[in-house]
Amino acid sequence: MDILKQLITQHGIVMSNQTLQLDALLNHQVDPALIMQIGKEFARRFREEEVTKVLTIESSGIAVAFATALELGVPLVFARRKKTLTTDGDVWSERVPSFTKGIVTDILVSKSVLGDQDRVVLIDDIIANGDAARGLIRILERAGAYLTGVGVVVEKSFQAGARTIREQGIRFESIVQIKSLDGGKVEFE
Amino acid sequence: MDILKQLITQHGIVMSNQTLQLDALLNHQVDPALIMQIGKEFARRFREEEVTKVLTIESSGIAVAFATALELGVPLVFARRKKTLTTDGDVWSERVPSFTKGIVTDILVSKSVLGDQDRVVLIDDIIANGDAARGLIRILERAGAYLTGVGVVVEKSFQAGARTIREQGIRFESIVQIKSLDGGKVEFE
Repeated sequence: MDILKQLITQHGIVMSNQTLQLDALLNHQVDPALIMQIGKEFARRFREEEVTKVLTIESSGIAVAFATALELGVPLVFARRKKTLTTDGDVWSERVPSFTKGIVTDILVSKSVLGDQDRVVLIDDIIANGDAARGLIRILERAGAYLTGVGVVVEKSFQAGARTIREQGIRFESIVQIKSLDGGKVEFE
Repeated sequence: MDILKQLITQHGIVMSNQTLQLDALLNHQVDPALIMQIGKEFARRFREEEVTKVLTIESSGIAVAFATALELGVPLVFARRKKTLTTDGDVWSERVPSFTKGIVTDILVSKSVLGDQDRVVLIDDIIANGDAARGLIRILERAGAYLTGVGVVVEKSFQAGARTIREQGIRFESIVQIKSLDGGKVEFE
């Protein structure tokens, strides 16, 4: 995925030594053909796992999770943040801080779309501190669903998220790994 | 799209005579193959319009807008709700009420991903009162972008959204039209 590294170098905006803005290619605008390539790659890596559902969280992860689910031929579930009028009460929820939003949110998955018969791969666009991912993992545990692994497009490996998930013994896959944003420059592993 | 009508009848939950919960197939879980069929249908209807970008708003519209953009071979832009740490200041924003969320939100599109060279199709999952769609249309006007039309999967034709958009002289396309939710029953046009 050298093309993805090139695009990140070209279009990513380093906001601080912790924060990379990828609006041009992941968080606000996406190139569907590139996202399909990434989805195919995740599907290849998790093909043997007999996945029954792809899970992500709104919003930036939806496109790549959709592409992965399409390739695997299984449904996509996207966890919601906060309660909306049309979410029924029968949900699993977890309260998580959000690094990029700077706030605490509740993430919700309806019991009607996830259960103990499911083998799930968790897909997201980017992992920093991993709070949302760990919240989803707790929801999967409570649902009794089996977590086959986690796939993220961009791993900021200088932050704790990916490491803490691997330390739980969970398979963790990423497409590109960024080891530093120091000096306003994206440095890959 | 008789299959979609069948699925709505089977899995849609009528919450009131105004609100239909489609968590099982549109708002929380999606079948990627079905969404691709819908994306192909929107692409077919708007193929002649020389669309340069598909625009939607997070979150439920992203999957079908992605499928449409993939088929048309153009980028997908998803408008954000509220301001996050990684959205730069150079944005168009509009304040809109949200029917399903029961709150007022700001919708944002970065000036870096939309401009006066763009020919845009607006895609969303469902239209009720059309507040979000009208907000996006105002943003397109301010960006100087050309709106080729609006496509939504489910039109609740007993609410004002679709009608007010058509009355502005804007092409409006929907896959299924629901004329009533009275008596807890989904009635199609």
